[in-house]
Amino acid sequence: MNFYTLSLFPDMIANCFNTSITGRALAGGKLTLENINIRDFANNKHMKVDDYPYGGGAGLVMQAEPVYGAYEHARNLITKRRKETGRKTTTPVRVVYMTPRGETFTQRKAEELVRHRELIFLCGHYEGIDERVLEEIVTDNISIGDYILTGGELASLVVMDAVARLVPGVLHNDESAVTDSFSDGLLEYPHYTRPEVFHGKRVPEVLLSGHHAKVDAWRLEKSLEITKRIRPDLYEEYMRKGSK
Amino acid sequence: MNFYTLSLFPDMIANCFNTSITGRALAGGKLTLENINIRDFANNKHMKVDDYPYGGGAGLVMQAEPVYGAYEHARNLITKRRKETGRKTTTPVRVVYMTPRGETFTQRKAEELVRHRELIFLCGHYEGIDERVLEEIVTDNISIGDYILTGGELASLVVMDAVARLVPGVLHNDESAVTDSFSDGLLEYPHYTRPEVFHGKRVPEVLLSGHHAKVDAWRLEKSLEITKRIRPDLYEEYMRKGSK
Repeated sequence: MNFYTLSLFPDMIANCFNTSITGRALAGGKLTLENINIRDFANNKHMKVDDYPYGGGAGLVMQAEPVYGAYEHARNLITKRRKETGRKTTTPVRVVYMTPRGETFTQRKAEELVRHRELIFLCGHYEGIDERVLEEIVTDNISIGDYILTGGELASLVVMDAVARLVPGVLHNDESAVTDSFSDGLLEYPHYTRPEVFHGKRVPEVLLSGHHAKVDAWRLEKSLEITKRIRPDLYEEYMRKGSK
Repeated sequence: MNFYTLSLFPDMIANCFNTSITGRALAGGKLTLENINIRDFANNKHMKVDDYPYGGGAGLVMQAEPVYGAYEHARNLITKRRKETGRKTTTPVRVVYMTPRGETFTQRKAEELVRHRELIFLCGHYEGIDERVLEEIVTDNISIGDYILTGGELASLVVMDAVARLVPGVLHNDESAVTDSFSDGLLEYPHYTRPEVFHGKRVPEVLLSGHHAKVDAWRLEKSLEITKRIRPDLYEEYMRKGSK
């Protein structure tokens, strides 16, 4: 999986992605990440990439040309890499624009995106990006949730993280065993580890019993209880589908 | 606004938050951020902070004690700062746990959180955190969306970013003018800036007309069109409330 980002803050993305589990995956060659600075494609001596919106209003809009230049650069890198690795493919490259005006990101979307070898993430700032370049290059508009961020960088990091952990070899055993909250449709049951007593609170007796069927039953019961209380929408969907 | 994070990857949070608009806000003293490493509060010579779950199953669970130790440290820093700044307050400190098992984060929640002077963010890793310490310290369980991340760090960065931009002085004029997608209930209309022609596409005529009422009407029409197509849920809610 090769990620490419187009943004005004490539260092933010690099510094963040290059730590923890995703940093280890980069170091181990499971992933690559190329952060392209849109400002490098400014076509004026002041390196300006934004201007006032036609039709008036406050705020600045990112111009089409530098965004397109950055996109072309990413495309060239992809073509070069495809040649180097001898991959013959005509699959069009997916370009994901992080925007509140997108479909809401879900685990299902992460599972779809991980099937691609290359993904380009376009991150906006200010008021947004000139619509004409978006029409031309963007294949997927994605919103990570109904809230407003200072820019698209964090949103792209979230999507890349969710996709990266699905790439084979990125998670180690201890991590990959996560009983995914959204893959079986229920939220997780409570976890306990040593010591047996913490601040006077004991681990629930059943978890010490060694009786696997009882442990499983207790965990399912807790999952159902928690899901019903916190996310009645998920609970109803689960019940409609029938329990497994 | 003073943010405190409790995590296993304090550098990831620091490197990411310390760039772009939030980095400028930190430098300008509009915000403070203290990243506490849970591992510093391990109570064993191997600095281990996780162990196998009671009741069996793969994956590791973060232990209650180091998490509690990190929390106490944050509380002490807050008490000290309150004393130094002469603020007499007995407001309990909000502790936000980033978890799929939380309420879904929204712009409304960001607006609620920004009213606090201090926020502690607890970020889990592995299978989760021992339930007993969560019961004891957490005041808010927040999920940023229905997808799975490698850890809570990115999720806390998203919430901190959304909250930070609401802190007075953090955004400059050009940035703060954003016509917030989720505050008026509609998604944004398309934006255009110079040049007038990009790849043969002209800016819509109405935006060049100088006729403000027509521009506003066109923008509202586009917002309604886009919202109806991409987020029928938001569109219906907007229509129910009646247009403004």
